[in-house]
Amino acid sequence: MTAQQPTLPAPVTRAEVEAAGVRLGGRVRRTPTVGWEVPLDGGRFPVVLKLEQLQHTGSFKARGALNRLLAAPQLPELVVTASGGNHGLAVAHAARELGVPAEVYVPETAPPVKIAGIRQRGATVVLAGSSYAEAHAASGDRAAAPGALHVHAYDDRDVVAGQGTVARELAGQAPDLDTVLVATGGGGLIGGIAAHYAGSVRVVSVETHGTATMSAAMAAGHPVDVEVSGLASDALGARRVGGHGFATARATGVRAVLVDEDAVRAARHLLWQDLHVAAEPGGATALAALLSGAYLPAAGERVGVVVCGANADPADLGTGV
Amino acid sequence: MTAQQPTLPAPVTRAEVEAAGVRLGGRVRRTPTVGWEVPLDGGRFPVVLKLEQLQHTGSFKARGALNRLLAAPQLPELVVTASGGNHGLAVAHAARELGVPAEVYVPETAPPVKIAGIRQRGATVVLAGSSYAEAHAASGDRAAAPGALHVHAYDDRDVVAGQGTVARELAGQAPDLDTVLVATGGGGLIGGIAAHYAGSVRVVSVETHGTATMSAAMAAGHPVDVEVSGLASDALGARRVGGHGFATARATGVRAVLVDEDAVRAARHLLWQDLHVAAEPGGATALAALLSGAYLPAAGERVGVVVCGANADPADLGTGV
Repeated sequence: MTAQQPTLPAPVTRAEVEAAGVRLGGRVRRTPTVGWEVPLDGGRFPVVLKLEQLQHTGSFKARGALNRLLAAPQLPELVVTASGGNHGLAVAHAARELGVPAEVYVPETAPPVKIAGIRQRGATVVLAGSSYAEAHAASGDRAAAPGALHVHAYDDRDVVAGQGTVARELAGQAPDLDTVLVATGGGGLIGGIAAHYAGSVRVVSVETHGTATMSAAMAAGHPVDVEVSGLASDALGARRVGGHGFATARATGVRAVLVDEDAVRAARHLLWQDLHVAAEPGGATALAALLSGAYLPAAGERVGVVVCGANADPADLGTGV
Repeated sequence: MTAQQPTLPAPVTRAEVEAAGVRLGGRVRRTPTVGWEVPLDGGRFPVVLKLEQLQHTGSFKARGALNRLLAAPQLPELVVTASGGNHGLAVAHAARELGVPAEVYVPETAPPVKIAGIRQRGATVVLAGSSYAEAHAASGDRAAAPGALHVHAYDDRDVVAGQGTVARELAGQAPDLDTVLVATGGGGLIGGIAAHYAGSVRVVSVETHGTATMSAAMAAGHPVDVEVSGLASDALGARRVGGHGFATARATGVRAVLVDEDAVRAARHLLWQDLHVAAEPGGATALAALLSGAYLPAAGERVGVVVCGANADPADLGTGV
């Protein structure tokens, strides 16, 4: 049985990430890193955490959204996207920063608190359909209007390049890393980070079994649909990995590992209890690969971990004392 | 009416902070800074936040406790202190790190969650009396045992010098600051920071009206008892400022300002909503001086703000989206 292989986009390049970094300038926060130690094999293993949950809107998504808008030949008259989550917040933020109206299409099932967050940032929320797919279709129709720009949540070169500026910063802050662990959802962040490092550092994609788009694509040789479920599906639950992110990850030798949800919970708990960093499940997923043994570093290996999002209710973190 | 002026200790010096920094070495986290903007006068005012809530045990207290133990001629056989809060956690942590048994005397009214946190760090919790004063007295009796070391929460040169290493780091991370805003409780942190800067940077002490030990001491010319109450009293609620911290603050020209509790709540809320930093009320008090106008920076003034503690229940932070 031979399947028709879909044509993949060209990998995103380090030059595109570099251009994004220059373009973004001071519009994104240079999020700090902190040296930390995690329990491993009965000892302590040093890691460098990139605290990207401190970014505008609480996730790395602000980078890609801003780069997408700024990379357009001219600012659009209207920005349109579909998202009930971090990308919606990021597009609302980016549009407000640049003085452009934004419409964010969200399924009627989206959490009221996320809808409120998008509205707080000045965007118009359009309730459209009972699923993300329906909201996405409706946003596409609206984006056909003259002067409108449709911003994809991950499968776009400028979005991927924007997310890659996380690695551009990290490389300056921690120049000696051997390995960087990154959570994968739609592939924008991992693709951008892989583009920047371009094989010079081992980049590891981490997903839960319920959001395993990159692993499935690596196995198939191209993006394929997966069933999405579970704890991390809110932020990581794309149906398939984006072609740009996948092509870039594959071309640069990204390795994909899987973790279970208990490891994500443990990572989130440890980040709060020991460091008072509030991460959402997707934001703690990269760390879960270390804690669970899904990624086993060698002795002395210098490992960076991207904490990429904080948009969860902190009530379930416990008191942290 | 002339009152007998109490004799003040000699101010803590920059050399003592420097020695503490060398002594502590890698035993404390070099907490990162992040550039941020706060709403001020309808615009945005840039500040540098020192994220000291990421320190071991969730507050700067780990620095002073470790320095106190390490500065002793030899490690004690037993460490004793009284505290149901951040200092108790810090002493338990420091003792465990150095392999020394610790006994922490806490009043029977201390929150069970803090008691649990102290126990989790391997210390013996001794419930003693119905007030901090009673617990403190009991701890003093115990500390008279041979080989025991009593660690005061703030009024001790080595504790003050240890807390000052926050400024030693900050000076390297943000060398161009004009002003640093610091919350004052018992005066350990402000004293240490003032010792390091030694007048080269404007250091501002920030307290709530309900925990105004430094302001009262500045007015009286020496530490005096104050009535303690309100939101920030958990972490900042010393009955009077320590002589070492006060003497150092006065000698180096520290200015003391007061904020109300609404400003502390607003600061805590803003830190979470806009930056996803979880601060306890005392940890957000320094920022409250900017938001409330209690400290008014000049245009272009480069202001640093120390976020010094995270040990509060995050459930009241809201979802942050």
